[in-house]
Amino acid sequence: MDTLALTGGKALLPDGTVETADVLVDREGGTIAAVGGDIDGVNEATETIDTTGCVVIPGLVNAHTHVSMTLLRGYADDTPLETWLREEIWPVEAALTPDDIEIGAELGAVEMIRSGTTTFADMYFSEDRVASVVDRAGMRALLGHGAVTIGKDEAAARADIEESVTVAAELDGAADGRIRTAVMPHSLTTVGERYLREAVEGAADIDVPIHLHANETVDEVDPIVEERGIRPMEYAEGIGALAEGNFFAHGVHLDATEIDLLAESGTSIVHCPASNMKLASGMAPVQDLLDVGVTVALGTDGAASNNDLDLFDEMRDAAMVGKIAAGDAAAVPAESVLRMATAAGADALGLPGGRIAEGEAADLAVVDLDAPHLTPAHDVISHLVYAVRGSDVRDTICNGRVLMRDRELTTLDPDRVMERASAAAADLIARAEGDT
Amino acid sequence: MDTLALTGGKALLPDGTVETADVLVDREGGTIAAVGGDIDGVNEATETIDTTGCVVIPGLVNAHTHVSMTLLRGYADDTPLETWLREEIWPVEAALTPDDIEIGAELGAVEMIRSGTTTFADMYFSEDRVASVVDRAGMRALLGHGAVTIGKDEAAARADIEESVTVAAELDGAADGRIRTAVMPHSLTTVGERYLREAVEGAADIDVPIHLHANETVDEVDPIVEERGIRPMEYAEGIGALAEGNFFAHGVHLDATEIDLLAESGTSIVHCPASNMKLASGMAPVQDLLDVGVTVALGTDGAASNNDLDLFDEMRDAAMVGKIAAGDAAAVPAESVLRMATAAGADALGLPGGRIAEGEAADLAVVDLDAPHLTPAHDVISHLVYAVRGSDVRDTICNGRVLMRDRELTTLDPDRVMERASAAAADLIARAEGDT
Repeated sequence: MDTLALTGGKALLPDGTVETADVLVDREGGTIAAVGGDIDGVNEATETIDTTGCVVIPGLVNAHTHVSMTLLRGYADDTPLETWLREEIWPVEAALTPDDIEIGAELGAVEMIRSGTTTFADMYFSEDRVASVVDRAGMRALLGHGAVTIGKDEAAARADIEESVTVAAELDGAADGRIRTAVMPHSLTTVGERYLREAVEGAADIDVPIHLHANETVDEVDPIVEERGIRPMEYAEGIGALAEGNFFAHGVHLDATEIDLLAESGTSIVHCPASNMKLASGMAPVQDLLDVGVTVALGTDGAASNNDLDLFDEMRDAAMVGKIAAGDAAAVPAESVLRMATAAGADALGLPGGRIAEGEAADLAVVDLDAPHLTPAHDVISHLVYAVRGSDVRDTICNGRVLMRDRELTTLDPDRVMERASAAAADLIARAEGDT
Repeated sequence: MDTLALTGGKALLPDGTVETADVLVDREGGTIAAVGGDIDGVNEATETIDTTGCVVIPGLVNAHTHVSMTLLRGYADDTPLETWLREEIWPVEAALTPDDIEIGAELGAVEMIRSGTTTFADMYFSEDRVASVVDRAGMRALLGHGAVTIGKDEAAARADIEESVTVAAELDGAADGRIRTAVMPHSLTTVGERYLREAVEGAADIDVPIHLHANETVDEVDPIVEERGIRPMEYAEGIGALAEGNFFAHGVHLDATEIDLLAESGTSIVHCPASNMKLASGMAPVQDLLDVGVTVALGTDGAASNNDLDLFDEMRDAAMVGKIAAGDAAAVPAESVLRMATAAGADALGLPGGRIAEGEAADLAVVDLDAPHLTPAHDVISHLVYAVRGSDVRDTICNGRVLMRDRELTTLDPDRVMERASAAAADLIARAEGDT
């Protein structure tokens, strides 16, 4: 067997404990062959990475982003969501070319690999170009075309929903199966009811989930309540959008009835704390969601509202703001947050990974704990959420393949990616501002 | 003149703009000799640091911490403030030795220098040992003995207040003037009224400011309101504790009257967003404070409630949670936050530094912008608050002396410091848990 052994360090196990353990990876199968002490085959491994002083964790799962928006990092800060979208972001997005999408995705992939993320869910346009980056980068992803119908005539609206279904059908299984897809109507307010229903039907036809933005701001909730007299999740239920396997981003403004509907239906929520704070959208009731068993994953959202794709920042944010939201310093503890960024992320997306155990996907990150800001080591779980930063990730492995080793990327060239991204971003802004 | 030139990069100037500029440092005087393009003397500098691709910023000011608590990093997370203090932190603090204080301060100094902080304000015990670390490390600091009188008899209470005054008198001007001091009664609820008055008088006698915890939690506000029928800042005013030069930590639960009292008196607030979130203390009204002209500085608080001493994390937290607190994505913008961590920090503490301009103290940090997570570079101000992390700091300079160059510390040995800190922390916990 062609194997990779990670030896001498600790590992974060699925029960939330950190133990001294080696991890043996079956590189051909892309899976974890064994975990523990005294594993057969470790000494005969094809390749060995010494993890002494490190903790091996599951590759992190960024369950909601718009990866190509890295090109807009820091372009428009400190602006309310509606103004930010309508006056700043949408005009620039209108000028984006498929090449920009690919270059932005490449920059995002570099950043994610460097901070231990192996898997992401992306909602944007020209997803075929994102797919080619995922393939090259060696990452795992769930991709979808974000469809919007408001302000469009019937033909254009229907075409956008159809594109979301077509893209999902075409890309599903790409990159040797590392790419899965979803149909992605943008949100319950930016897609009309008939088109939401078509999206749900289209997703069922091709057996992929639905991903959309839900209850992100008060402005997304109030129009539905006013027009229909029901809450957005009740509306979503009526449309058939609440279902096991579907996952909704944000879920900031949810009432108790809606939280129960999510739990009963098996619909997951992707919590995006940094974006929700930066756009002043609000604080999601994360502990309440966890209490009733909703699967809560973590997402960075796009880099323009974050401004990074680093899930370590996001974990810290989730633990911090979760306590303020609950008014309880014991709420959203570190172990819950780690689960959100790993196993719950994989579960929400229906993808492999997220757990270090025999037979699971070999999606892993090696975190170097030998640093002043991680000393002393009273509690590795605490460190992973509150003190580790993305730059402490030393090695990143996806599907059994090493994507970063000793901070050096193996599949992408960061210098070239940064150079192309800087040039593309400058061109993009020049075009967008020239247009307005 | 013995000079250090930082050439080829950008600099953050006191007006909040980032310009291409060289910085010439007078190393003997510890001051900035000149800033700009085409400066006389740059080519003849004794030493030159190439800052191409970097931005030079003022050394950051951590205006409220308990630096030796690095030894308790991650020891007791996810616990409400009162339980956390009484059941977890205080028993361990009771077992702290002066050696522990020094070792913890050394670890904190290493972490701060590595993340671009040159100056900190510390409230703790055995501050002479912290002073010796500041001296060796080459940092700048404002130190004080935190006095508590509740639960003590009169003699012990008076002795603690007197110690706070004595320590302030003795340490003021130490480390070639890089150390200044304050009298530090712990808070308005943990120090009785007569002792607070004695602290205020003692500080006036030796001409140093007062630093205390104020309005951190509801539990610190309610007893004063119930007992006295006035708000804590009204109480502080009556005691004579509101005055230009004094600076209070936290200021989470402040009403409009109190905010006006702070502004009118010139009392500064040190905002500690991470600690306030992690302990679920609440969200400080930072934009309201800024609106009426209160000087708002930034602090990490102790590492046990953060869990790091990295002001880049703190800046990001301040910008994020400030927006949620105000319900406005335009609140607490990046430029305000940068000022809080630099010029306002120096002003709150009454110390040199915080501004890159001729004649100011040469307290500087060089931030390397050449990284995927800082690409593209639409806005350096945005990056400094939302995307830069402490590990992007390449060089740190305090009082004209290079404390870190190319990530290598010049005054402290991180490996030795980490080793000693790990051993001391393990011993400390064993002693504390053995005692209980």
